[in-house]
Amino acid sequence: MFFYKHRVRYYETDKMGVAHHSSFVLWFENARVEFLRHFGIDYKGIEDKGFNLAVVEVNGRFLKPVFFDELISVQVNLAKFDGVYAKFDYKVLNEKGETVVRGYTKHLVVNRDLKRSKLPEDIIKKIEKSILKKS
Amino acid sequence: MFFYKHRVRYYETDKMGVAHHSSFVLWFENARVEFLRHFGIDYKGIEDKGFNLAVVEVNGRFLKPVFFDELISVQVNLAKFDGVYAKFDYKVLNEKGETVVRGYTKHLVVNRDLKRSKLPEDIIKKIEKSILKKS
Amino acid sequence: MFFYKHRVRYYETDKMGVAHHSSFVLWFENARVEFLRHFGIDYKGIEDKGFNLAVVEVNGRFLKPVFFDELISVQVNLAKFDGVYAKFDYKVLNEKGETVVRGYTKHLVVNRDLKRSKLPEDIIKKIEKSILKKS
Amino acid sequence: MFFYKHRVRYYETDKMGVAHHSSFVLWFENARVEFLRHFGIDYKGIEDKGFNLAVVEVNGRFLKPVFFDELISVQVNLAKFDGVYAKFDYKVLNEKGETVVRGYTKHLVVNRDLKRSKLPEDIIKKIEKSILKKS
Repeated sequence: MFFYKHRVRYYETDKMGVAHHSSFVLWFENARVEFLRHFGIDYKGIEDKGFNLAVVEVNGRFLKPVFFDELISVQVNLAKFDGVYAKFDYKVLNEKGETVVRGYTKHLVVNRDLKRSKLPEDIIKKIEKSILKKS
Repeated sequence: MFFYKHRVRYYETDKMGVAHHSSFVLWFENARVEFLRHFGIDYKGIEDKGFNLAVVEVNGRFLKPVFFDELISVQVNLAKFDGVYAKFDYKVLNEKGETVVRGYTKHLVVNRDLKRSKLPEDIIKKIEKSILKKS
Repeated sequence: MFFYKHRVRYYETDKMGVAHHSSFVLWFENARVEFLRHFGIDYKGIEDKGFNLAVVEVNGRFLKPVFFDELISVQVNLAKFDGVYAKFDYKVLNEKGETVVRGYTKHLVVNRDLKRSKLPEDIIKKIEKSILKKS
Repeated sequence: MFFYKHRVRYYETDKMGVAHHSSFVLWFENARVEFLRHFGIDYKGIEDKGFNLAVVEVNGRFLKPVFFDELISVQVNLAKFDGVYAKFDYKVLNEKGETVVRGYTKHLVVNRDLKRSKLPEDIIKKIEKSILKKS
């Protein structure tokens, strides 16, 4: 299973002394891009072709506080995908292996004008073949 | 009803040309603090007494893109509150009055050691009296 | 003189309990856009015409810590401007009137391809007339 | 020489299509912490002992735009250090080896009450021995 590693940064902490709850959205995004890269899908390349996986919903549940300098791991799973819609699930683990955040993001494929679109068939096939069957 | 006004900032945009989806978490937080202030509840004062409304879940659904320099309005509603747990609902409107984001945050009261706690009775009463009955 | 007012946000604080030093760059940007608007210059309109004031240098000196929920004021001054290059000076004051941050940003006008350019004559004249002579 | 590697993130870009100029402050901070770790200095440990390297000045000059998904390298150098004051210099390189950002941060040692302080002698010696003589 794919893990995106992230060192919790000083600027991510707030005056409670823990990582601010907004940080998870950025961790999810970075983990998603690296997850795709890991399976041979270049998100930048998809964008260069004129398509975006626009985020239409994001959800995070915070189970335990996360502290400065912890090395966390973000597990990513592509739960649903049909070329038009995608859902990713995430689980963030701290160094002790405890689950600290759980969440998901939902996406719609859009074109450069931000209108609903569909990924080209070759990219859809590549994602189905490389991710959905292996992960 | 209370509205928190926010000008969409340049640094909030991303290369798609719209406000990045992570921004909503910060809009919700600012709107929440100003909503409480509007009803006479000083969040900083609550913190200074040793209590926090730790975020345990955040959810946002993005209905329409939001653009640089738009003046958006965040509606806040305290949906549930019992001194230990709180849920806030949010609706973000653009200048045309269209709903662009909907979401919620769930909170647990914690003390300075991040352990579950309960707000002092006088603060609970004040919130019940000033917000739950009027908003 | 123009002041941009900003409430220091929870997410801007770090585990030292003060506003993180990166926040000033965003305060400067917001203050700059509002300063221009105050003098009738619409930064978004300039962008829509294909020009940007790309930041080529930013500097901040932190004289005193800034705390959560403080209402700070950012003074802006257009120190130099010739249609190709601009320098803005900033001074951030806390509620007591103490200077907490000083700094500047330097800008070059670029076009949509990020190449050095020059603002159209009518915008140059408007900035010279409305800002340089009055501020 | 030490290099901190960073993948430019989607949320770091702005509507100009490049990394927003505020990002460099965070790159510098991350690079500084990893630079110290590389030389055996645990910044979190210093904080846990009650000391901070409070930032008193930050400067960045942007020589070339930085794009989404580029893998940049941040060179760090401890230019001055005497246990009370420190200055770090930074140079950011893109994948082609071009210098894209140059800058520095200046720091004063403070204690938990944010008052000027001095690092303990053992930490000073360790930094002098491990960094100043080797880097």
